[in-house]
Amino acid sequence: MESTTHHSVADTSLVFTRSDEQVQALLQRLHEVADLEALGALADWDQQTALPKGAYEARMHQMATLQGLVHERFTHPEIGSLLQKLSERVIQPEFTAADRGLVRQTLHSYNRATKLPRSLVEEQERVRAAGTEAWINARSNNDFATFAPWLTKTIAIQREIADRIGYAETRYDALLDATEPGLTTARVEELFAPVRKVSSDLLQRIQASGTDIDDSILQGTFSIEQQQILCEKILQVIGYDFNHGQLARSAHPFTTSFGSPLDARLTVRYSEQFLQSSLMAALHEGGHGLYEQGQSKSLMRTPLATGASMGMHESQSRLWENAIGRSEAFWTRHYAIVQELFPAQFKNVDVRAFVRALNKVQPSLIRVEADEVTYNLHIIIRFELEQAMVNGEIAVESLPGLWNAKYQEYLGITPPSDADGILQDIHWTSGFGYFPDYTLGNLYSAQIFATLHRLFPDMDERLKHGETGFILQWLRENMYALGTTYLPEDLIQRLTGEPGSPQYFIDYLTHKFTEIYDL
Amino acid sequence: MESTTHHSVADTSLVFTRSDEQVQALLQRLHEVADLEALGALADWDQQTALPKGAYEARMHQMATLQGLVHERFTHPEIGSLLQKLSERVIQPEFTAADRGLVRQTLHSYNRATKLPRSLVEEQERVRAAGTEAWINARSNNDFATFAPWLTKTIAIQREIADRIGYAETRYDALLDATEPGLTTARVEELFAPVRKVSSDLLQRIQASGTDIDDSILQGTFSIEQQQILCEKILQVIGYDFNHGQLARSAHPFTTSFGSPLDARLTVRYSEQFLQSSLMAALHEGGHGLYEQGQSKSLMRTPLATGASMGMHESQSRLWENAIGRSEAFWTRHYAIVQELFPAQFKNVDVRAFVRALNKVQPSLIRVEADEVTYNLHIIIRFELEQAMVNGEIAVESLPGLWNAKYQEYLGITPPSDADGILQDIHWTSGFGYFPDYTLGNLYSAQIFATLHRLFPDMDERLKHGETGFILQWLRENMYALGTTYLPEDLIQRLTGEPGSPQYFIDYLTHKFTEIYDL
Repeated sequence: MESTTHHSVADTSLVFTRSDEQVQALLQRLHEVADLEALGALADWDQQTALPKGAYEARMHQMATLQGLVHERFTHPEIGSLLQKLSERVIQPEFTAADRGLVRQTLHSYNRATKLPRSLVEEQERVRAAGTEAWINARSNNDFATFAPWLTKTIAIQREIADRIGYAETRYDALLDATEPGLTTARVEELFAPVRKVSSDLLQRIQASGTDIDDSILQGTFSIEQQQILCEKILQVIGYDFNHGQLARSAHPFTTSFGSPLDARLTVRYSEQFLQSSLMAALHEGGHGLYEQGQSKSLMRTPLATGASMGMHESQSRLWENAIGRSEAFWTRHYAIVQELFPAQFKNVDVRAFVRALNKVQPSLIRVEADEVTYNLHIIIRFELEQAMVNGEIAVESLPGLWNAKYQEYLGITPPSDADGILQDIHWTSGFGYFPDYTLGNLYSAQIFATLHRLFPDMDERLKHGETGFILQWLRENMYALGTTYLPEDLIQRLTGEPGSPQYFIDYLTHKFTEIYDL
Repeated sequence: MESTTHHSVADTSLVFTRSDEQVQALLQRLHEVADLEALGALADWDQQTALPKGAYEARMHQMATLQGLVHERFTHPEIGSLLQKLSERVIQPEFTAADRGLVRQTLHSYNRATKLPRSLVEEQERVRAAGTEAWINARSNNDFATFAPWLTKTIAIQREIADRIGYAETRYDALLDATEPGLTTARVEELFAPVRKVSSDLLQRIQASGTDIDDSILQGTFSIEQQQILCEKILQVIGYDFNHGQLARSAHPFTTSFGSPLDARLTVRYSEQFLQSSLMAALHEGGHGLYEQGQSKSLMRTPLATGASMGMHESQSRLWENAIGRSEAFWTRHYAIVQELFPAQFKNVDVRAFVRALNKVQPSLIRVEADEVTYNLHIIIRFELEQAMVNGEIAVESLPGLWNAKYQEYLGITPPSDADGILQDIHWTSGFGYFPDYTLGNLYSAQIFATLHRLFPDMDERLKHGETGFILQWLRENMYALGTTYLPEDLIQRLTGEPGSPQYFIDYLTHKFTEIYDL
């Protein structure tokens, strides 16, 4: 357990040059926008954790008004003019890395935002708010038809956004660039090909191995109250700070950032039958939370006060969830917490069996609960469907069938219902282009994990003794504190000494599952 | 239990004339402001129910930015110009009561708001947010000194606001007018004199009577989970609609309105030792909630989408809490819920004894838990201190002493600590002029209750049979649906057929407690 007290900023490169009038003027406008965006994040958090069922119509108006206003303030010509002037000046040595990051990141968003009219932004927000409500009901009633009109609207809006933003090769490029600056469809395809290959190969070998891991110990009846305590304890173990965060409950687990390290909240969902659902979600969202809480406070209320990209963000959720959270080393010490809270289920189960159960590979229906080998196949399915939707190659009514056909093709299983199929993710109320970031996150995660192994040759030993603080400290200093100061491609180079590559993930996956399944 | 499904508006007088271009233009601007204010209400709700301890600095910035923006948008000259044009036109018969109310109410707020600079509004919001945080800590540490600087700032801001708004007789008038349009210090004094007299006289007679009500049954150990179920059940009994609301927990009970009948949330606080704390707070806040949920949906996202005034709002919380919620008639049927949830404590206690305990008169320290006889004495103390503060007649350091002296004078008791004394209420982080509305609420409440008795001569009988729906229905149709369409003085006339008068409260109090204490 470690404290995340926010010290004064050690790294002066992360302090803005407020003595410069243009920097100061830009920050003043960006602070206002960041505050409004934080309120939008709050409204979203509230919608998923507390909003009364009958209130969504009011919330939809509030969100549309807010997003319209954010857009109006952020696209103010004065911001454009300051960015233009500063772009030429910030390369000079008297400016800091934070100044340069601020101008780069803001310019990227500004150039996108100014291409979209306010009415489109408001419409997108209305569709997102009302579509979320429709999705919640459609999912619980297993009724795709009531969600279809909202998906149709989302597609139309996403196409219009892409066309207005512009793209070199394919419409989907314009959407990928929103959360992962510079990422293209071609690059995703290049990265996904070897990932698909290693996933499919490993899955085949595992299925052919005859080894069947027994994960029945993770099923049964687990009191929700006890699960909640377990999630809180494990979050404390990895250093998540409840003084600047909170753990709530929602239909779909998520992390909310409010544009400062002072407040980063998580949700999980609990299933009485499956312990893994909440526990692994807590570690996943906890990884996001650590990243947010670790930002330098000097960046707060600016566009730099979040992760370097969504892919980088996912790298940290996957690092803490999988590379650490599904390792025997980590549980060697902390498994006692699980045993204490659920003695009936685990008193006669050793840590080895527990961790093996956590790593059972089995094609399954739900992405967020998939094992590491099959996880990226879930992503590739969504990536292919999103492209087809954005390119207008697909009729919405035919989507459930296509979804099921792809699950049969990639994973050899067919969802028995749309609730467990196409309706499982919340993402398609917001837009497209985000799913590939999850796989990108897995790749970054493995590359960073390999670096940690190199830097700390005794890492496994220390994990076995219950230590994780040294990992968190290194990540904070070298990554979390920096927020969005550097582009993801620069950050991965700084962190690992080389450009991003899928090879580390391929090696990680092959090594880990060859060992577990004795291939 | 009744449903609050929002029907289409039956009363066309509550529909705005949107076909009129000026009305439409005004509404468009006011919708935006209402949406932003709803987000401010959400941020406030969140601060008191969920915000992580270490996050208040971020929240303070968000609130200051939002309030500054609301002020900027609301004071836009176009609104002033539309109001001026419409003021002359809305008296014509083709306009509706809602149009006229909208122009009147907006003009009142507009004239106040345009007198205040944005910087002052932002500063007030920062002081409120940071002061709330300081108050929470000061109260739990019983340390007035750490709250004093924030109170000093509040006084300075309130004085500046009053001076900028202007007033005819005394500075405090300018503050009273904010929540109760047209109310003056002189009028409050005129109303409070007989209230003080009847309270003091009754208290003396009760203390001299030798009758001592045993309320020990309300003390003991009451599981918080069971209390929560009790609060929810009683709220359902009076018709509070959880589909458009929620019950949460906070340090100080309150109701949040989000500018529409679709979302009106309540909080209570639970004490394991005192059942009354949560139960009576639920009925009190439930009264506020019913008022909010009962508004005509046609008024949503406008300044008319709340109660007619704060005094009128308090009249409904006090009506449901006291006139109904502390009556034997109400509990005749519903006491079974209490007995079922707390059988050990109540199985051998009859309803009579339960209700007598709820009505025990005893000078006590905490306003929100005071009996009906002494309640207004708590208010008068605050009214006197607020005036002295605003007039600059008092040093902040001397306030705890003055507070205690007044408690001795009015109630014959001295708080053993500031936490149970001057630090008990959250209000002084927001400003002054609100407390008198509570007493005004008691007066309105008694007058409305007398009307209900006249209209429904069998009211007591029906209450004894568990019915409250007929009361709610009448209040909805004649009061709640109207929101702020009418001034409080016009509304009380419409509701009761005569102007507001303290006589009904005096009669109510005298009759009720003469009977209970057999005076």
